[in-house]
Amino acid sequence: MALNCIFFGLGVVGQDAARGLLDYGVTISGAYSRTSHVGEDLGTVIGRAPIGVNVEPVTAFEARPGMADVAIFCTTNAFDELLGDAMACAEAGINVLSIAGNALYPWTFQPEVAERLDKAAKRGNATILGCGYQDGVMVHLTGTATSMTTDLTRIEMDCFSDFSRLGESSTERLGLGMAREAFPVEESVSAAADATRPASTMGQVLDALCDYIGLGRAELSYYLGPVVAEAVTPNPFTGDEIAPRHIIGMEEVVTATTPEGIELVGRLTAKLFAAGETEYYACRFGGAAPYELRLTPAYGLEWTTGCLVNRVADMPAAPAGLITVVDLPAPRFRGVAGPR
Amino acid sequence: MALNCIFFGLGVVGQDAARGLLDYGVTISGAYSRTSHVGEDLGTVIGRAPIGVNVEPVTAFEARPGMADVAIFCTTNAFDELLGDAMACAEAGINVLSIAGNALYPWTFQPEVAERLDKAAKRGNATILGCGYQDGVMVHLTGTATSMTTDLTRIEMDCFSDFSRLGESSTERLGLGMAREAFPVEESVSAAADATRPASTMGQVLDALCDYIGLGRAELSYYLGPVVAEAVTPNPFTGDEIAPRHIIGMEEVVTATTPEGIELVGRLTAKLFAAGETEYYACRFGGAAPYELRLTPAYGLEWTTGCLVNRVADMPAAPAGLITVVDLPAPRFRGVAGPR
Repeated sequence: MALNCIFFGLGVVGQDAARGLLDYGVTISGAYSRTSHVGEDLGTVIGRAPIGVNVEPVTAFEARPGMADVAIFCTTNAFDELLGDAMACAEAGINVLSIAGNALYPWTFQPEVAERLDKAAKRGNATILGCGYQDGVMVHLTGTATSMTTDLTRIEMDCFSDFSRLGESSTERLGLGMAREAFPVEESVSAAADATRPASTMGQVLDALCDYIGLGRAELSYYLGPVVAEAVTPNPFTGDEIAPRHIIGMEEVVTATTPEGIELVGRLTAKLFAAGETEYYACRFGGAAPYELRLTPAYGLEWTTGCLVNRVADMPAAPAGLITVVDLPAPRFRGVAGPR
Repeated sequence: MALNCIFFGLGVVGQDAARGLLDYGVTISGAYSRTSHVGEDLGTVIGRAPIGVNVEPVTAFEARPGMADVAIFCTTNAFDELLGDAMACAEAGINVLSIAGNALYPWTFQPEVAERLDKAAKRGNATILGCGYQDGVMVHLTGTATSMTTDLTRIEMDCFSDFSRLGESSTERLGLGMAREAFPVEESVSAAADATRPASTMGQVLDALCDYIGLGRAELSYYLGPVVAEAVTPNPFTGDEIAPRHIIGMEEVVTATTPEGIELVGRLTAKLFAAGETEYYACRFGGAAPYELRLTPAYGLEWTTGCLVNRVADMPAAPAGLITVVDLPAPRFRGVAGPR
């Protein structure tokens, strides 16, 4: 039976996910947006023939039991934003799949929000899950790449992404083109093993990965800072040029030490690329016989969409409540066997 | 509770696996060998302190219910060899874990043998599973690396291995040092989607991978042939030199086309390495946004052991019968959370 989805958020990822789901034969019966594309047909919005689904303002949304199997949220990165329409969906029995980076492994980050969502989802016998690139690549692929070794001392991940592919609004905030000193949010913080965590995409990845391979909760250190240009770099958003030593991106570095003494390092670099640079994901595994896993090229945006679309089929049978990707089997391509 | 294992086969992989399991805190209560090391203490055999387990001749083995949780077979590559002691173990309720390459996905290869083993295992409420490098790397890691894409047209695997690390007996058979024409088993065969398969490590990998990602049974073509030297190559087994155009290894190439039109290619190269060559595993994924996964260096032997040791913890809860790695969750490092 064809799965029936409703959609929240029609930015780059939302539109791409809508195309992917339609190609998989999933029915999309509703689409909601804050302002953009309201009143347009979803098919037209994603560059295809009309499908008879008009984009409605999100303020008009009302969750009703049975209206969909899965509600897909491609809205913001904030976990607590799920307390709105997403929680209403779950309470009405509609499973929720979100690409919010902070929904990947949220119990250690915002436990009260997590508990409210969990209870609502259990009342509705529905599942709330955060997924995306981090699910397929950083947790499951990386976790499976530990299966060959019995002597693991260190995992060091490196995710190298093209800033120009993010939306302009994401990039402006981070001081693109400004002098290094002006980077608005540079900071270093730590969190003990039993402490709640600061907002951090990579921090949640490391917490999830530790859980996945059965390690205890780690002590974490977070660093967020600017990446500066080595040479003159074109700014694709403004057409200006950015001078050397001025900001062309950001990096987040999270370091974890588990109670078992295993070290994890996650580095997320997002910057304007120089000629010849491409996105990649690399992970080095330390131990008696160290090795590296490398994905080239990587596709930050497309893989976020791909992981989302390939998770939809897992939702109807997933356990009720707020779960994480660690609770589910490894994701896989579903283009043929998946939801139809 | 500590898992209790018995061991069959004390070649390179068997010895390495015994070390790995002891390091994981698994109890080894028996070890059986055709001839080598009979009468020695297993601890001594693996280069450690004695552990009070004498290696017994395999002819003396008698399966008794409750004697172990898992029997580990590091003996031959042949699936039907499991009809002996392995089947007796399963029938007595002892789970069987084998590194036989042809036990990875055997239902399409020797269905009658598979059925006999399956029935025996079900009578004993035990599990029989083939695992190894192919499990962790070629099925689960490769399968998980499809999770990012919704447009997959082709998977092309390349496993590049150092022949000198295999046992001498494996290599002699393949005509090392002989002229190209003398390669004893060069052949090309095909198997329709509904046909039983010839013996082929890579063929079973492709069948397993298709199953894992939900593709139908493919039509397969198999090629097995020699790899010849480009320059003078030392033969580490004999100390001789092998002249150019003479055999330094073998390659197996299996090509599959699924009913959905997806192409899979598996290439297994095992040869004497020139200076600077290292083992690797690479896999290219075709589609609208193609990418490559690469593991460098790879460790053929160590990873076979590692995948075996990391699977032991899955055995007690695995479903009864002859199963495959496709029926189990993705494997992962168990050094800390695993069997103790």
